[in-house]
Amino acid sequence: MGEVSKTGHGEMGRLDAFSDGVFAIAITILALELRVPHVEEVTAGGLARALLDEWPTYFAFLLSFSTILIVWINHRTRVSLLERVDGLVVFGNGLLLMAVAALSFPTALVGEYLTGPAGKTAVVTYVIFVCAVNGAWNIVMLAFKSERGLLRAGVPAELIAKMRRRQALTFLICLSAIPVALVHKYLGLGLITAMWGFFGWIAYGTTGRELTHPSIKHHRKSS
Amino acid sequence: MGEVSKTGHGEMGRLDAFSDGVFAIAITILALELRVPHVEEVTAGGLARALLDEWPTYFAFLLSFSTILIVWINHRTRVSLLERVDGLVVFGNGLLLMAVAALSFPTALVGEYLTGPAGKTAVVTYVIFVCAVNGAWNIVMLAFKSERGLLRAGVPAELIAKMRRRQALTFLICLSAIPVALVHKYLGLGLITAMWGFFGWIAYGTTGRELTHPSIKHHRKSS
Amino acid sequence: MGEVSKTGHGEMGRLDAFSDGVFAIAITILALELRVPHVEEVTAGGLARALLDEWPTYFAFLLSFSTILIVWINHRTRVSLLERVDGLVVFGNGLLLMAVAALSFPTALVGEYLTGPAGKTAVVTYVIFVCAVNGAWNIVMLAFKSERGLLRAGVPAELIAKMRRRQALTFLICLSAIPVALVHKYLGLGLITAMWGFFGWIAYGTTGRELTHPSIKHHRKSS
Amino acid sequence: MGEVSKTGHGEMGRLDAFSDGVFAIAITILALELRVPHVEEVTAGGLARALLDEWPTYFAFLLSFSTILIVWINHRTRVSLLERVDGLVVFGNGLLLMAVAALSFPTALVGEYLTGPAGKTAVVTYVIFVCAVNGAWNIVMLAFKSERGLLRAGVPAELIAKMRRRQALTFLICLSAIPVALVHKYLGLGLITAMWGFFGWIAYGTTGRELTHPSIKHHRKSS
Repeated sequence: MGEVSKTGHGEMGRLDAFSDGVFAIAITILALELRVPHVEEVTAGGLARALLDEWPTYFAFLLSFSTILIVWINHRTRVSLLERVDGLVVFGNGLLLMAVAALSFPTALVGEYLTGPAGKTAVVTYVIFVCAVNGAWNIVMLAFKSERGLLRAGVPAELIAKMRRRQALTFLICLSAIPVALVHKYLGLGLITAMWGFFGWIAYGTTGRELTHPSIKHHRKSS
Repeated sequence: MGEVSKTGHGEMGRLDAFSDGVFAIAITILALELRVPHVEEVTAGGLARALLDEWPTYFAFLLSFSTILIVWINHRTRVSLLERVDGLVVFGNGLLLMAVAALSFPTALVGEYLTGPAGKTAVVTYVIFVCAVNGAWNIVMLAFKSERGLLRAGVPAELIAKMRRRQALTFLICLSAIPVALVHKYLGLGLITAMWGFFGWIAYGTTGRELTHPSIKHHRKSS
Repeated sequence: MGEVSKTGHGEMGRLDAFSDGVFAIAITILALELRVPHVEEVTAGGLARALLDEWPTYFAFLLSFSTILIVWINHRTRVSLLERVDGLVVFGNGLLLMAVAALSFPTALVGEYLTGPAGKTAVVTYVIFVCAVNGAWNIVMLAFKSERGLLRAGVPAELIAKMRRRQALTFLICLSAIPVALVHKYLGLGLITAMWGFFGWIAYGTTGRELTHPSIKHHRKSS
Repeated sequence: MGEVSKTGHGEMGRLDAFSDGVFAIAITILALELRVPHVEEVTAGGLARALLDEWPTYFAFLLSFSTILIVWINHRTRVSLLERVDGLVVFGNGLLLMAVAALSFPTALVGEYLTGPAGKTAVVTYVIFVCAVNGAWNIVMLAFKSERGLLRAGVPAELIAKMRRRQALTFLICLSAIPVALVHKYLGLGLITAMWGFFGWIAYGTTGRELTHPSIKHHRKSS
């Protein structure tokens, strides 16, 4: 069983390291969009008002930070189920990382334009990028089908099926948020926020628990 | 005991890697706020004066760099006491990383506005973000209560209690710095600086020592 | 054989970690060039048009992201064949990382100038940087010659020879894209795009497979 | 001997990971200072001339990239000699990382002002930051004195003494480059460039060799 953990380290290690790196950078550079306001009236009150006026920027930062955090939590759980990788995992993962890395762009767009007359375009663009993240996840999850032979021994088929169903559902919610945002920008953004809130709540409850599934041969069982 | 280290590696490894990544990026992008001055009088003396005039930017850089370094040192020590994670650890840690990542924003604000009439607002904003860092630490420390069962075997309850008391105290100092900064901006900033200086001094003395607590079963003891 | 994996970990571990870090950051900061447009007519339609007008920026982002992803995939495969490093590996790798890190510069250049009268200069500059990436790879591959004694036991000479031939060919394609771009900018950019598409397709097919070459003593075989 | 490698992993692992992260980010964000020129005459020739006019930016990028690469190579070699850390290592290392992270600032300054009348100020500032890097190294090296008990078993005292002497010499060269730069900017910059060239050449020759010192008990010897 030492073989399992060593394999995991050798083949999986750099995929984990690279992905964690991109997640960590993508989540941190969101802060670069929190820009110092250039106030005309340089007084304590004037700067305070300018800072409060930037609330869409803070909201967009919080939403995108939470989004990437949840994607990372899911990534951590799911990749730990793999014993080795193939081209589909590596390139699907590459697409996922691309969508995650690019998320700072629509985040800045929402921060800049949300409250004004172009807010609808900003929200629709944001939703499209969230759809890209979830679409990429659906591609990655194709590699988890047991017939591809990448899974660790003992990962139950129903666990993978449940993950794939949930991911497909998430993608549909994203797609449906596009027309909703076209009708009402705050409703579209609220739908995406509620979706991540829900999945965050799920992830909160299951973190540290899914790894104890009795039939999965894990590192901790393997020694 | 090989089991302990392997578990640590499997479940804890990516939390460490992701957190270290965010800390490393957050601490490094502080340097992006050290901006090249655009001088009108392009002479050796003119540029030298413009560079010296930016001293609040350098001070804010030093302060925030030290802050994140100390948070990282504490993170390293504390997370090494955990054997596994749950939702509270992961999301509390996420909040902590969010506050740390966002610290470049009030740092730039202090660098830009400290000496002028809006300096008070800049300092109060900075203090609020430092409070957010310490508030998030208090949430993370809730997960270290022994009844949650995440700790390594043998971590003494009084060590955790001491850490939690100190973290609660830090949060109170931060909160008290807000009214102080409203009265006098340099006093508020000095209080935060003194606080980190004190905790840096503590961390300096204890680094490399707390891990040798005789009752904790550690990697180095475990083989 | 445990010796092999420990050696790999000790000497190779930080080269991997540092390289993965640079790759991850270089690929993620490409997103910083996706800039929020400053529209004059702030309406939903005006912002949408401004966003669509930025298509060269998106194309350049996709191309450079794919480039760095493929370089990383090759890096992962190739470095896993090494048992230890010498100066040539470390400095050749440094050149490679420098070229990869710098790629965000010509990417932004193409995004800004592609469609206008200076598009030819932007594309030629981009191609020169891609040549630098591939030139650096050729230097790194010099260290893989078996007489240098850095390879793991059992890595077949023909595998290395094939990698070196392919890398030399890639460099020649890059060089030839310079005069092509001078004649027609889209043709030069198309040649580079096609080249990465081809190598991406190769990498897709071989990922997870080259590591099972029967004569290479790998981690997974070694326990 | 498995104890040695596990200790190394537990106590040293996150210092390595954090430091590698900061080095990787600091070296990569240098590329953010390679800025797209805003040409007035948007033609192929006009953009080409504007790009060539930015040569000080490219030179500064190359110099700082090489600087950080060499610091990282030395860091990798030296930290591998430590068995555990104390406050001096962690805070000295923090100072080193701070100086390395801040290097993008004087790099941008040199890129912006080198050729003009304020070039002297830019070069002197650059040299001061390089002195800070080397000064921090001298502090870190204090922790390598054998009486502090942090070294691995068998690290020869003369190896440490040689490293410390060389580091002190480097610091003196840096200090001497300040008056030189005040007299002649290109001479001061040339001295720093020559210094890194020399240490790069040393590092090139010794990489992969110093770890085989017969009396040091290393991972590879330990199994």
